[in-house]
Amino acid sequence: MGDVNGVGPEILAKALARHREWMPAPPDTRTAPLVIGDAGVLEAQRPVARAMPPLEAVDDPAHAPAPGAVAVYDAQAPAPAPTPGEVTGEAGRCAVAWLRAAVRLALAGDVAAVVTCPLSKMGIRLAGYEYMGHTDVLQRETGADRVWMCCFSEPRRMRIVHVTAHCPLSMSLGALSADRIAEAVRVSAEALARLELPRRRIAVAGVNPHAGEDGLLGSEESDVIAPAVARCVAEGYDCSGPYPPDTVFRRMMEGEFDLVVAMYHDQGHIPFKLVAMDEGVSVTLGLPIVRTSVDHGTAYDIAGKGVAREASLCEAVRLAERFAGRGGEGS
Amino acid sequence: MGDVNGVGPEILAKALARHREWMPAPPDTRTAPLVIGDAGVLEAQRPVARAMPPLEAVDDPAHAPAPGAVAVYDAQAPAPAPTPGEVTGEAGRCAVAWLRAAVRLALAGDVAAVVTCPLSKMGIRLAGYEYMGHTDVLQRETGADRVWMCCFSEPRRMRIVHVTAHCPLSMSLGALSADRIAEAVRVSAEALARLELPRRRIAVAGVNPHAGEDGLLGSEESDVIAPAVARCVAEGYDCSGPYPPDTVFRRMMEGEFDLVVAMYHDQGHIPFKLVAMDEGVSVTLGLPIVRTSVDHGTAYDIAGKGVAREASLCEAVRLAERFAGRGGEGS
Repeated sequence: MGDVNGVGPEILAKALARHREWMPAPPDTRTAPLVIGDAGVLEAQRPVARAMPPLEAVDDPAHAPAPGAVAVYDAQAPAPAPTPGEVTGEAGRCAVAWLRAAVRLALAGDVAAVVTCPLSKMGIRLAGYEYMGHTDVLQRETGADRVWMCCFSEPRRMRIVHVTAHCPLSMSLGALSADRIAEAVRVSAEALARLELPRRRIAVAGVNPHAGEDGLLGSEESDVIAPAVARCVAEGYDCSGPYPPDTVFRRMMEGEFDLVVAMYHDQGHIPFKLVAMDEGVSVTLGLPIVRTSVDHGTAYDIAGKGVAREASLCEAVRLAERFAGRGGEGS
Repeated sequence: MGDVNGVGPEILAKALARHREWMPAPPDTRTAPLVIGDAGVLEAQRPVARAMPPLEAVDDPAHAPAPGAVAVYDAQAPAPAPTPGEVTGEAGRCAVAWLRAAVRLALAGDVAAVVTCPLSKMGIRLAGYEYMGHTDVLQRETGADRVWMCCFSEPRRMRIVHVTAHCPLSMSLGALSADRIAEAVRVSAEALARLELPRRRIAVAGVNPHAGEDGLLGSEESDVIAPAVARCVAEGYDCSGPYPPDTVFRRMMEGEFDLVVAMYHDQGHIPFKLVAMDEGVSVTLGLPIVRTSVDHGTAYDIAGKGVAREASLCEAVRLAERFAGRGGEGS
């Protein structure tokens, strides 16, 4: 459910209201949702999500709700009364408790995937945690060595895996290495395989204008990126590059590639947010569990106003199903 | 005309064939074109541009052609027979001679603006010149102190001015300064004024993810960019920022800003090429003359095949007219 003072509860209610699009009829429980959050907070969103199924608060996440109902598990962390648009430590504390519970259930195999609504970094801090955000919680709770921030939009044919992410741009440049880039290619290929795509053509972006233009405009391409690509090709991956960053994303959208490995946060986020703003999905690869997320923040400015859009969350659910092998493309 | 072995002659012929869209009927010579290049090479494109007006080779660029005809001036540099797709020094030599002639005519006030077709940097080098490209020729021939690489697309509502451009990304980061950013804002405001836009809202992009997120993800925003914005606001410019780079371009397209000042080449080129690929215009600000250009290269791979698109060149002509005060929006 994320931060109850953001748009999380609202988009969750609206996404559940579209259950016919993605919830199977009983007895097929293939994609039965388990909401981890507060049932009362969710119920309060019914005026903007009338088609939301009945909710059933459960103390045990393994408890199957009545047919047609959605189970809501609060992980012993009942929410405070929401104060939309306000950053509070109480909301931050619940968001973390719910996320941790979700990770535990996924690690135990009790849920097939985790889909997250936005939380507030500031709220987490006010709650006394030192986590930097979702990814940090996920990484620590699962013990993952390294995770990869990815942006996927199946409708727009955009799949982007970032070699570096939330750090100053100058640090991203310093952190590029052939090892790290090659690892990103391998993780990307595995993700494409899980999506059961017929082709797994991975384009690796350069980092400098015109991908360095034969060394005139930078040397990272020849020093680091090209060797990584060569190594991956030798390993059998369908991988090429480095490509000029200012055209590689369009080439992917036009069908030439299935995924682009981007070197730094904005290299991937600028094209992604331009094209897939309302329906983009954030994916974390490198975890032992499947995790997708909406590609936007708490949007405190519109929280509680009933105008938030659930498209990104619905796409995040669909993509999580595919990564989890529950319902492929068109199924 | 640019490099005769690239798509220049073809897109030029096709753009001239659409003259009814932009050439005034005589005696109005407001936007009478003067082609600087080779008449024979251009004439050879007639099979793919049947509506191209009659061409008239002139020895004196001031010579008015017959009514309805287009003057072609070769600046005493007749072209070699084109060998489409090949990089040759002869083609490079002509491209430079024509560009220099165009600059001289513009400096003398004999033409109102210069619009350029693509040339080959390698061709220029093979011809023995040390110029790095168009911009380098323009800067040296006009004695301009500093020029600004800009991407404009009026149909897509995208206007981007780059603080740094053709250099390694790490050098771009090092070259950012409050002085330089403030100067980019001033130049941008002047450009918007020349386009006679009712509003001149200039957004300044950050350089780090989330525009540094209050210093967590980088310090350029607080050290350099914010002070530059503050200075420009104090000078009376309608300027704000720094904004997160991954959403500022979309906000411009949606009407919130009239222009974005981008910090480095790909920050502006990634969104621009994604959205305005076929109709984008490259603009050089900071010169004492008006200069626009197509936003693509020689495209040797499709040269001579008759499939090149003239949309970018037509847009470049329209924008040059507006910068030169000859024909405003909708005129």
